[in-house]
Amino acid sequence: MNRHGPITGAHIAEKLNLSRAALRPDLAILTMSGMLGARPKVGYYCTGKTPSDLIAGVLGNIRVGEAHSHPVVVKESCSVYDAIVTMFMEDVGSLIIVSEGGYLEGIASRKDMLKQSLGGQNLNKLPVSIVMTRMPNVIVTHPEESVFRAAQKLITQQVDAMPVVNLVQNDAGEEKYQVVGRFTKTNITRLFVQLAGH
Amino acid sequence: MNRHGPITGAHIAEKLNLSRAALRPDLAILTMSGMLGARPKVGYYCTGKTPSDLIAGVLGNIRVGEAHSHPVVVKESCSVYDAIVTMFMEDVGSLIIVSEGGYLEGIASRKDMLKQSLGGQNLNKLPVSIVMTRMPNVIVTHPEESVFRAAQKLITQQVDAMPVVNLVQNDAGEEKYQVVGRFTKTNITRLFVQLAGH
Repeated sequence: MNRHGPITGAHIAEKLNLSRAALRPDLAILTMSGMLGARPKVGYYCTGKTPSDLIAGVLGNIRVGEAHSHPVVVKESCSVYDAIVTMFMEDVGSLIIVSEGGYLEGIASRKDMLKQSLGGQNLNKLPVSIVMTRMPNVIVTHPEESVFRAAQKLITQQVDAMPVVNLVQNDAGEEKYQVVGRFTKTNITRLFVQLAGH
Repeated sequence: MNRHGPITGAHIAEKLNLSRAALRPDLAILTMSGMLGARPKVGYYCTGKTPSDLIAGVLGNIRVGEAHSHPVVVKESCSVYDAIVTMFMEDVGSLIIVSEGGYLEGIASRKDMLKQSLGGQNLNKLPVSIVMTRMPNVIVTHPEESVFRAAQKLITQQVDAMPVVNLVQNDAGEEKYQVVGRFTKTNITRLFVQLAGH
């Protein structure tokens, strides 16, 4: 089929010296698996898909909403010191910073905190908003995004974690991000173990 | 087959009202995919494997040696301050600490550094060996371990990174770990993107 291009079932049966009925289950399996495509009046053709494409299909179909963690948030006015304490208490690698209405304002990582703590300033007097990555520079994901696409963002944007958000309108009619979760390399690693392990 | 248990090719052909020759390619595909097993003189049987088992097979067959990063190491005598600077310069989340001979002594994460930097001590005067997790408490992996097993360790032991080591003998005949790499949640995430993306 790779050589002949699209070919009808009757034609395949003839070449293989089999009846069309006998061939049907074979073709059904190959079509279901995605390795063959079928078009009416044209016939069967190779999709060029391999078993690893089938894996890609499974990984690409899982959504961020099925795999994310609960968000750990602080207000903008929180001190860097208290933010670091929250990180230790919740054992998270990043904190999500929200406005009074609970909308996304920024994100701060252990790396941001470590950099600041080297500066020798009084961490109790500095607000966390000084060290955070601020909107609109925050890389976000949403519950319907595929974990594949989200993982790709983590790698290409070189971040360890992203807020999971829904786009909503606030009372003033402005579009804002409502924070519903946190998606991290730990979520991917856990998913990897689940997929490989059961 | 699920109902009838092991069954010969002739028997299947009879039940499905097909010739044995016509059935052969079907059975070959199902056997290759791992969903059917075949035993001489007994016949075919369901292995109970599903498409997700096939995924597990692929993920379980990739070795740590194919996916790890280069190790970033410092000596035990390095100060906490210099260790943090090295972390920023190399942009890594953990440093591997080695003895004079280059053997594994410990590992220190951003979290360890952040905790220490809050203490208000002079980080230039503290050696990194004060903050590191020390052997034999370091969770390690080796190049031949499956990435599945390594990912499982990252999750259950709650670490972000592991040294990749080979067991060797030093000049005194003692068994030591030679550090050959660093395996992290970033490696898993990258692998996930590769598997799902090509």
